[in-house]
Amino acid sequence: TTRRVEFHDTDAAGIMHFSCYFRFMEEAEHELLRDSGLSVIHQDESGTISWPRVAAECEFHGAVKFEDVVQIEVRVRHLGQKSVMYGFRLTHDGRDVATGKMTVVYCRLCEDAPPKSISIPDWITEKLKSRLQ
Amino acid sequence: TTRRVEFHDTDAAGIMHFSCYFRFMEEAEHELLRDSGLSVIHQDESGTISWPRVAAECEFHGAVKFEDVVQIEVRVRHLGQKSVMYGFRLTHDGRDVATGKMTVVYCRLCEDAPPKSISIPDWITEKLKSRLQ
Amino acid sequence: TTRRVEFHDTDAAGIMHFSCYFRFMEEAEHELLRDSGLSVIHQDESGTISWPRVAAECEFHGAVKFEDVVQIEVRVRHLGQKSVMYGFRLTHDGRDVATGKMTVVYCRLCEDAPPKSISIPDWITEKLKSRLQ
Amino acid sequence: TTRRVEFHDTDAAGIMHFSCYFRFMEEAEHELLRDSGLSVIHQDESGTISWPRVAAECEFHGAVKFEDVVQIEVRVRHLGQKSVMYGFRLTHDGRDVATGKMTVVYCRLCEDAPPKSISIPDWITEKLKSRLQ
Repeated sequence: TTRRVEFHDTDAAGIMHFSCYFRFMEEAEHELLRDSGLSVIHQDESGTISWPRVAAECEFHGAVKFEDVVQIEVRVRHLGQKSVMYGFRLTHDGRDVATGKMTVVYCRLCEDAPPKSISIPDWITEKLKSRLQ
Repeated sequence: TTRRVEFHDTDAAGIMHFSCYFRFMEEAEHELLRDSGLSVIHQDESGTISWPRVAAECEFHGAVKFEDVVQIEVRVRHLGQKSVMYGFRLTHDGRDVATGKMTVVYCRLCEDAPPKSISIPDWITEKLKSRLQ
Repeated sequence: TTRRVEFHDTDAAGIMHFSCYFRFMEEAEHELLRDSGLSVIHQDESGTISWPRVAAECEFHGAVKFEDVVQIEVRVRHLGQKSVMYGFRLTHDGRDVATGKMTVVYCRLCEDAPPKSISIPDWITEKLKSRLQ
Repeated sequence: TTRRVEFHDTDAAGIMHFSCYFRFMEEAEHELLRDSGLSVIHQDESGTISWPRVAAECEFHGAVKFEDVVQIEVRVRHLGQKSVMYGFRLTHDGRDVATGKMTVVYCRLCEDAPPKSISIPDWITEKLKSRLQ
């Protein structure tokens, strides 16, 4: 996945705001899901299922500026029974920009209660296994 | 309502990004609704009702920088049968920063169809009337 | 230009937040500038020159949801001596989603004073003329 | 520091988008700096000095919804020669929502080169020491 740094992604220090790295990481995750025929939010007969984040971290190795094109690599680093941990590497012109991790949990969303984690179905695990590295 | 310009609101030109003016305007609208005992999104027995925007505009008279405190005035400019038009004035240190307008329509949200406009109930019209100027 | 609605672009009503339309419009403007060999912010020997917005407006004709792909058309609607007015049309699957306008002014940015409007140089006017419709 | 979850902070899952937690954390950091008579970006005779982030992480313990008021505690967890590590705790109604950490480095910003880390002056270290816990 590649993304161009847009003007609204920058801040008064002239570089991309750090919260945008997390947005780029999430966009890459969603693209991986789409490529695997999945979506970050979907409906089944009993309601809505999604992948809320339980942890996210990022190390910033270099700044990127307006109009820079950032390359985002995403891979599945760990596949649990209810959770997935993704690893990310952001580069610009071959130079390391950031590395990150994100752990998401497969959850049924409830109207009036917190999301409830459930086991990832086998067919989804199979699809994500091919991205495991 | 007042808001401080946060770092993530700024862009590489060193000033607040223009899309944030619309966010400030919307936050002031929501605060007016809250002050009137209303909310921009609520449930009744038949589902969810909200106020989708049909038009928004803003004229920018001056820039604001990181850590500037912006004063946002909001008033009801027009109360229709199904729609409300709000007017906004943003100032900083007594200096005009922007003026804007936003038209919202009272709508029932549908799962698989576009939002459907419905008449604003009398009790809501009454509450908004006091903000009409 | 096309953009996919990302998860962080949506709001609790399940649709793209209205302020993101303005971001999409701006991204299309910047892409038009890039295609013309220009940039929204550049340096010359006396400092920084940019295109601050003086007015923006948008009419919303329909909602878009997460993962929808939005087509953004941008054209130059008016070329003034110091300002440019762009027109935008956003569609999704051939359906009108929004139309908008944005007026920007060619300005020298100053450290301790408001941006100062200056005449658009001929070579830029020439480049933008070809986008005039 | 307290922040209300605004409508544009929510996503289609009906809860605050995870990248907004990082924005709230940064706003609390900037408020701590302001309270100490400092700023996240300032000028001296040789140019601009700021605090770029080198690492950020967050664990999400619970979701927050539109109009929820979030309490953000920030403290200095580690004071290095050139870096500061902040710890954050976000709660809503006494319930833990998230905990996070952020490491920032005191840097001189350069026009055409990456930010260069420099020693934190004693007067700043003194001010931050009182927030150390």
